[in-house]
Amino acid sequence: MKPLVPTLAAELNGDRTMPTIRAEPLTPRAFAPFGDVLDATGDFRLINDGLCQRYHDRAKLDFGPETSYAHQGISIFNAEPRSLPYRFDLIERHPQGSQAFLPMTANPFLVIVAVSPETKPNAFLTNGAQGINLHRGTWHGVLTPLHAPGLFAVVDRIGPTPNLEEYRYTEPWTVLAP
Amino acid sequence: MKPLVPTLAAELNGDRTMPTIRAEPLTPRAFAPFGDVLDATGDFRLINDGLCQRYHDRAKLDFGPETSYAHQGISIFNAEPRSLPYRFDLIERHPQGSQAFLPMTANPFLVIVAVSPETKPNAFLTNGAQGINLHRGTWHGVLTPLHAPGLFAVVDRIGPTPNLEEYRYTEPWTVLAP
Repeated sequence: MKPLVPTLAAELNGDRTMPTIRAEPLTPRAFAPFGDVLDATGDFRLINDGLCQRYHDRAKLDFGPETSYAHQGISIFNAEPRSLPYRFDLIERHPQGSQAFLPMTANPFLVIVAVSPETKPNAFLTNGAQGINLHRGTWHGVLTPLHAPGLFAVVDRIGPTPNLEEYRYTEPWTVLAP
Repeated sequence: MKPLVPTLAAELNGDRTMPTIRAEPLTPRAFAPFGDVLDATGDFRLINDGLCQRYHDRAKLDFGPETSYAHQGISIFNAEPRSLPYRFDLIERHPQGSQAFLPMTANPFLVIVAVSPETKPNAFLTNGAQGINLHRGTWHGVLTPLHAPGLFAVVDRIGPTPNLEEYRYTEPWTVLAP
């Protein structure tokens, strides 16, 4: 079924030296070095005869100077759900554009980011009513929903030029539940 | 509590001449004159070591020629849930930009659109795993979730120039359940 998780849990019990990251709640302040939290908190304007709150222009979208041959697009991602503890050894970044992940379910998902490949990554857990926008060039883990369906709308750069850098850690990190 | 609904239901029973619209399932073909259905169907590319399906660049985003002083943004909308039968007499459109509605829950929502103020509007019901992108200038009803929370990410034009036209019907329409 899912052999990785029991194995990993057993391994964790036996090996306290394995590099771990404790997931923490996603907040705008903690996430500020990496991107924007997109949710219905803070200031809003009322529209539609008072029946709708608009939390206006919440993401710093940035698609670089290549506007003549690139554009911003909306794609739908459907990702396999993972579970905690979650092990990873790969991070990536997109030098030419920001990337927003907007969950299409009310399920929390895991967000892994890093200031650089040399620093300890951060792991955040959303509250089920938050999307994120990764600022251009932010190192991050791959999309990691924790529940099925792992359905997201993604706003990112569409264009022909290379826009992916990857970094593989020599030893994997393990993300633990909060 | 919600007096409109029982009153409207009673009225519907007594008055069969009231102008009604039967909601229909949202499909790309039926929605094509109005916009794009954003969902995880059709062609995809596998990314992230095969763990994620990317349904690529699904929306026709169009923000007109005013790029020097306008940009595309992501806002969060939190709208009051409505119920069926649903009565409305107002439609609107945004002449300067497309507008995408990405539900942040798995709940179906109601989409009202019209080819023009002179034609009978269409009402679509999403299946709980669909977002929509209204093409630039498409006449549409206000955001109408059918469940709480009515939480959506919205990708639309941010700019200082007027971008809203409204039309009020002389007699309200009533949307009936499929």
